[in-house]
Amino acid sequence: MNTQELLSPIFQHRSIRKYKNQAISEEVLHLLLEAGSRASTTGNMQLYSIIVTQDTEQKKALAPLHFNQAMISEAPLVLTFAADIHRFHQWCEINKAGKVYDNFAWFLNGMTDTLLSAQNVAIAAEAQGLGICYLGTTIYMAKEIAEFFKFPEGVIPITTLTIGYPAEEPELAPRLALEAVVHREQYHNYKEEEIRNFFASKENTEETKKLLQVNDLPNLAQIFTLKRYPQKDNIEFSKRYLRFLQENGFMNQ
Amino acid sequence: MNTQELLSPIFQHRSIRKYKNQAISEEVLHLLLEAGSRASTTGNMQLYSIIVTQDTEQKKALAPLHFNQAMISEAPLVLTFAADIHRFHQWCEINKAGKVYDNFAWFLNGMTDTLLSAQNVAIAAEAQGLGICYLGTTIYMAKEIAEFFKFPEGVIPITTLTIGYPAEEPELAPRLALEAVVHREQYHNYKEEEIRNFFASKENTEETKKLLQVNDLPNLAQIFTLKRYPQKDNIEFSKRYLRFLQENGFMNQ
Repeated sequence: MNTQELLSPIFQHRSIRKYKNQAISEEVLHLLLEAGSRASTTGNMQLYSIIVTQDTEQKKALAPLHFNQAMISEAPLVLTFAADIHRFHQWCEINKAGKVYDNFAWFLNGMTDTLLSAQNVAIAAEAQGLGICYLGTTIYMAKEIAEFFKFPEGVIPITTLTIGYPAEEPELAPRLALEAVVHREQYHNYKEEEIRNFFASKENTEETKKLLQVNDLPNLAQIFTLKRYPQKDNIEFSKRYLRFLQENGFMNQ
Repeated sequence: MNTQELLSPIFQHRSIRKYKNQAISEEVLHLLLEAGSRASTTGNMQLYSIIVTQDTEQKKALAPLHFNQAMISEAPLVLTFAADIHRFHQWCEINKAGKVYDNFAWFLNGMTDTLLSAQNVAIAAEAQGLGICYLGTTIYMAKEIAEFFKFPEGVIPITTLTIGYPAEEPELAPRLALEAVVHREQYHNYKEEEIRNFFASKENTEETKKLLQVNDLPNLAQIFTLKRYPQKDNIEFSKRYLRFLQENGFMNQ
């Protein structure tokens, strides 16, 4: 088997937001979850939980917590990934070992474990011919999502994958040139000219031109900062998540 | 090609800490980095940077920042992954779009982008017959690592991969049963009995028995909380990382 075949799920990845009305078998689901559990994890502690949502009513109820993105209701499978220090603490307490992971470093370790596991699931899904989409809304609505799934203290939403058989074939998303994200031996602090060149291809697409016209804005960067991810939301979501970290003990010190 | 072959890098993963004295070609390196850049990313913003360390002197100098773990000096390739809001801010400033991503939500988005990219690199490396190991020390020594690579404000270390051709063949690491980490429709809060069962296989290994004897401790949980990841370190690393987030503008609000 050549490298190209082995790597094809990675190199063919595009986010899929429209799914066929076709169920995912229990066998395939098991394979995806097993793939998730094989990812590297801090001290082999597996500081995450994965919540499987397949029930139609549950998906409908969950959708508003993701700003009613259609994928939640339409995907046959929704997986919510949470950093989970609770299970490990339970084990420690049974063994009179104390409760010492309720702090920020272990939120970071839990988040790391969670995301490596999620990406394994994503790649395994794509290798099975499924399409996936990550939902950033998980961070914005973490507290509400935690309440929805009845998370105990120490379990905190990190990301969500919607998964299903693709009903669309989008183009590969354009990425920045490798030299824009890769640095040799030390960080290369880009000059204005370089930054302009890196982003030029995104700025000159038909899609961008339409966006600028519809929004009456002079450039794509302002579409990001004024429309897509504006300051007011950023501050609000930051405050919410920090407060929720506090409530879950991750800011104890 | 069957599923088994396609998924083998995921299901055969074990952390590799000893490497052959064999260089990684520029062609393979390029493939790994390209794989990293294909991962899902928040709004296609690619909020990360990857720093390639191959120079022998640089690796020697970097090793103390990872508590002198031998892998840093011995691996032919070390990749440091950082959340990077700096590049996107540069583009925004050129376009008079403001600087609105210096807050905690965008640290989380950057960390997410960074880890999905890192896991793509890890899987691509394993698909090439390479072995990898993640270094959690990146979080503990983030400020020192950032200074080492001359990161500007808004670039913050998240994880590190050491990569090389394997010179060892460790067993697959045992993982918790799937029912310990997977929940159907809502979170299942485990009873003491369940927790005991989940962790029993780890507690009864020869390795654990030796550890308990050497450390004169009654159980494995106490090895974790008193020896491997004790409270004093957890608090210290939490404080350091939070202070560094503040210095990098990620706590502005």
